Amino acid sequence: MAEQLTGNVLVAQSGGPTAVINASVAGVIQEAGRHECIEEIYGGLNGILGILNETLIDLNEEKARAIEGLKYTPAAGLGTCRYKINFKKKPEKAAQDMDRLFEVFQAHNIRFFFYAGGNDSQDTTNKIHHEAVRRGWDMRCIGIPKTIDNDLPHTDHCNGYGSVIKYNATTVMEVAFDVSSMATDDGSCCIVEVMGRAGGWIAAGTVLAKRQPTDAPHLILLPEIPFEEAKFLAKVKETVAALKYCIVVVGEGLKNAAGEEIGVDKTRVDAFGHAELGGAADRLMEIVQGKLNLKTRTVKLGYAQRAAAHFASKTDVNEAVACGETAVRAAVGGKSGFMVKIVRTSNRPYTWTTDLQPLDDIANVEHFLPSDWIAADGFLPNEKFIEYAAPLIEGDSHPPSEGGLPKFAVLDKVPIEKKLAPRA
Amino acid sequence: MAEQLTGNVLVAQSGGPTAVINASVAGVIQEAGRHECIEEIYGGLNGILGILNETLIDLNEEKARAIEGLKYTPAAGLGTCRYKINFKKKPEKAAQDMDRLFEVFQAHNIRFFFYAGGNDSQDTTNKIHHEAVRRGWDMRCIGIPKTIDNDLPHTDHCNGYGSVIKYNATTVMEVAFDVSSMATDDGSCCIVEVMGRAGGWIAAGTVLAKRQPTDAPHLILLPEIPFEEAKFLAKVKETVAALKYCIVVVGEGLKNAAGEEIGVDKTRVDAFGHAELGGAADRLMEIVQGKLNLKTRTVKLGYAQRAAAHFASKTDVNEAVACGETAVRAAVGGKSGFMVKIVRTSNRPYTWTTDLQPLDDIANVEHFLPSDWIAADGFLPNEKFIEYAAPLIEGDSHPPSEGGLPKFAVLDKVPIEKKLAPRA
Repeated sequence: MAEQLTGNVLVAQSGGPTAVINASVAGVIQEAGRHECIEEIYGGLNGILGILNETLIDLNEEKARAIEGLKYTPAAGLGTCRYKINFKKKPEKAAQDMDRLFEVFQAHNIRFFFYAGGNDSQDTTNKIHHEAVRRGWDMRCIGIPKTIDNDLPHTDHCNGYGSVIKYNATTVMEVAFDVSSMATDDGSCCIVEVMGRAGGWIAAGTVLAKRQPTDAPHLILLPEIPFEEAKFLAKVKETVAALKYCIVVVGEGLKNAAGEEIGVDKTRVDAFGHAELGGAADRLMEIVQGKLNLKTRTVKLGYAQRAAAHFASKTDVNEAVACGETAVRAAVGGKSGFMVKIVRTSNRPYTWTTDLQPLDDIANVEHFLPSDWIAADGFLPNEKFIEYAAPLIEGDSHPPSEGGLPKFAVLDKVPIEKKLAPRA
Repeated sequence: MAEQLTGNVLVAQSGGPTAVINASVAGVIQEAGRHECIEEIYGGLNGILGILNETLIDLNEEKARAIEGLKYTPAAGLGTCRYKINFKKKPEKAAQDMDRLFEVFQAHNIRFFFYAGGNDSQDTTNKIHHEAVRRGWDMRCIGIPKTIDNDLPHTDHCNGYGSVIKYNATTVMEVAFDVSSMATDDGSCCIVEVMGRAGGWIAAGTVLAKRQPTDAPHLILLPEIPFEEAKFLAKVKETVAALKYCIVVVGEGLKNAAGEEIGVDKTRVDAFGHAELGGAADRLMEIVQGKLNLKTRTVKLGYAQRAAAHFASKTDVNEAVACGETAVRAAVGGKSGFMVKIVRTSNRPYTWTTDLQPLDDIANVEHFLPSDWIAADGFLPNEKFIEYAAPLIEGDSHPPSEGGLPKFAVLDKVPIEKKLAPRA
C-alpha cells in the first residue's frame, strides 16, 4: 500500500444553489474531521473564482453547530459562481487560470479537492484532476453531484432534485386547492412556471401532486415535447369543461416545433452562453386568455423553488450529506477523477447507496428524461416516472424556527492568510 | 330571557381563499355541535352563489377527521365566490337575489348564518342581517374576518394575514440566501412580487425576514408610497455597492405619483370592477436592467402565497378556529349583525381574545397601514410595524404528510335535497 497522502482539504461549491448543496459540504467537513491524514479543512469562497482570488476560509474555525446547521440551510454557504475555465473558447485565459489554481493549491498544500456542482462544475473538477496528474501534484479531486436539473448522467438522480420537486409539487397541490375552490361555471386556469432549461425533470416532478386522476397538475408542458398550441388549448378546454379549472405546469425552457423557446428573451445570455429564460407562463397566459377567453393567472417560483429549505426532502438531505462523506472517504482511499453517484438498490422499500463514476464519463453529458416515461399524449409523465421520483421526496426536513421563521446557519468565514500576490 | 332560537346553521366562505379560512369553518362546525339549539349544520357551496342555487351540503355527514383536517387545509373547502349583491349598480337583480336567499333560508330553516370573508363579504353579511330584521325572519348573522390583505377595520388583524406574511418572509429569506451566495462583483437583483391590491400590509410583512440590518428585504415598495424611479434606482445601486446584491419586495398594486398602478393591465377587470394586476415585478426588472445594467430576476408567488398551508402560522390557525367558535357562541347567545374581531391584549407575551364589532362599522371601510409605521425614506416598515406583525407568524402549522406531500382534508359534500324550484 502506498504511503498515505497527507495535507489539506479544499471544498467549494459551484453553479446554481439548491436546498441541499450545503448538506454535502457539511458531509465533507464532518467526514474530513474523522481522518488523521487531513490536516486543515479550507473552503473556497464563490467556487473556482474564490480559489483564483485565494479567498479561502478556515472551516475548522466554524462552530460545530453551524456545520450541522448547513444540513438545513439553503443556497451555497461558501458562495458559488458560474465561472468557467474554457480551454476551447479562451485557451490563453484558461491556461493562466489553471496555473493560478495550482499556485493556490500548492501554496496551501491542498491535497484533497472537493467540488459540488452540476455538469459544468464536474467538467472543471475533471480538468483540475487531469492537470494535477500532468503536473505531478499529488491531489485527489472528487466531484459531488448537485443540480436541481437532475441532468447529470450515471447517478440515479442528483442532490437537490428531490427537494425542488417536493416543494413544487406541494405548491401545485396548494394552488390547485385554491383555484378549484374558486372555480365556478366561468372556469379558470392557473399556469405554474418552474425551472428547467433543457430538460423537463423539474416540471415532470410536479406530477407527484396527482393522487387522483382529476387532481392537478392537469397538463405538464415539458421542454422535450414541442409545444403545439392547438393541442394544448384543446386539452385546457377539455379539462375546464370537466372540472371548471385547469392547472398547467410549464418548464421555463418550453420550445415550439422549430426548437425556439416560447418564453425566451433572446437579447440576454448568461456566462456560459445559455439564453436566459423566464417568460413561458406569461406567454401561455396570453394564449389561453386570448384564444379561450378564460380567466388565467400565473405563478413563477423562480429562485424560491431551489432555495425552499423550509420544506426540503429529508431523503435528499440525507443523500447529499452521504455524497459529501463518500467523496472524502474516496479521496482518502486514494481515488481521484471521480464523481460520487447515488445508486438505487431497491424501489420498494426505497434503498440506495453511493458509488463512484469516472469524471471522464460525466462532464458535459446530459441525462434526459426517458421518452418512454412520458404518456402518449405528451402531457404527463407516466407510472415509470412516478415509480422513479416518488421516493425522492419522502420525509420532511424542517429547519429550527426562530420567531416563526427558519433559523439558517451562517458561517463566520474566518479567512486564511493569503500567501500569493493578487491575481493578475 | 327570551326563548332560545332553534334551527339550522348555514356556513359559507367568500372571496379569495387563504391558508386558514377552513380553520374558521372547522371552528364553526365543531362549536355548533356543542349547542342543543342547533339542529343541522349546512354548508353553502361557493358562498352566496351556492345559497342562491340552493346547493347546500350536510356537514354532519362529514367525518370528524375531515373537519379537524380543515384546520390545516388551504383554500375554501366549501368553495368560494366573488359574487356581489349590488343594490347600487343593479338594484333589481339585487332585490331578486335577496328574495331568493330568504326563500332558501326559510325552506331550510336557517336560523344561524355565518359568512367568512373580507370587506365585500362582511358587507353581504350585513345586508342579509338587516334584511332578516326587515322581513321578520329570526336569523342570527355573524361575519368571520378573513383576508390576507389585512384591510378589515376594528379587528387587530385578519385571519389569513399571519400565514401569508410568514410564507412570504420565509421565501424572501430563502431567496436572499440563494442570491447572496451567487453574488459576485457584477452584482445582482431579485424582485419578489407579492399580493396586495390597495394596501401594503402583505409586502410590509416580509420585513420580518430582516434579522440584521444588512438582511433582505432591502427595499419594500408599498402601494401606499408613490413609486419614484430615480429614488428607487439610487437605493438599489447603493445596496448592490454595499452587499453585491439587492432583494426588492413589491406589492402588486404599486402606483406612480399619478396614482396609476405600474404593473396593471388596464384591459381587464374582475367581478367587483377592480383592475387586475400582476406585472409590477416585471416592470421593475425592465427598469433595473435597463437603467443599472444589473442582472435581475423575478419571483411571482401569486396564489401560492395565500394557499401555503404547508408552512402556515400556528397562531393564525388558532385564531381562525377561535373566530369560528366565537361566531357560533355569539349567535347562540342572541347576537346578529356583528363581525368577530381579534383583540390584542398584550404584545409581550402576545395574548389575544375575540370580541364582536357591529357590521355597520365594518362594511366597505378599509384599514390602511398607518403612515407612521413606515420609515422616513418610505422603503421599509419601522419598529412599530414589526412589533405589531412579529407575533402573528409564531408557530409552525405542519399538515400531516403522505408520500412526502401534505395530506389535506377533502370533504365528501353530501348534498341536501333541494326544496325549491331552480333559480330563475
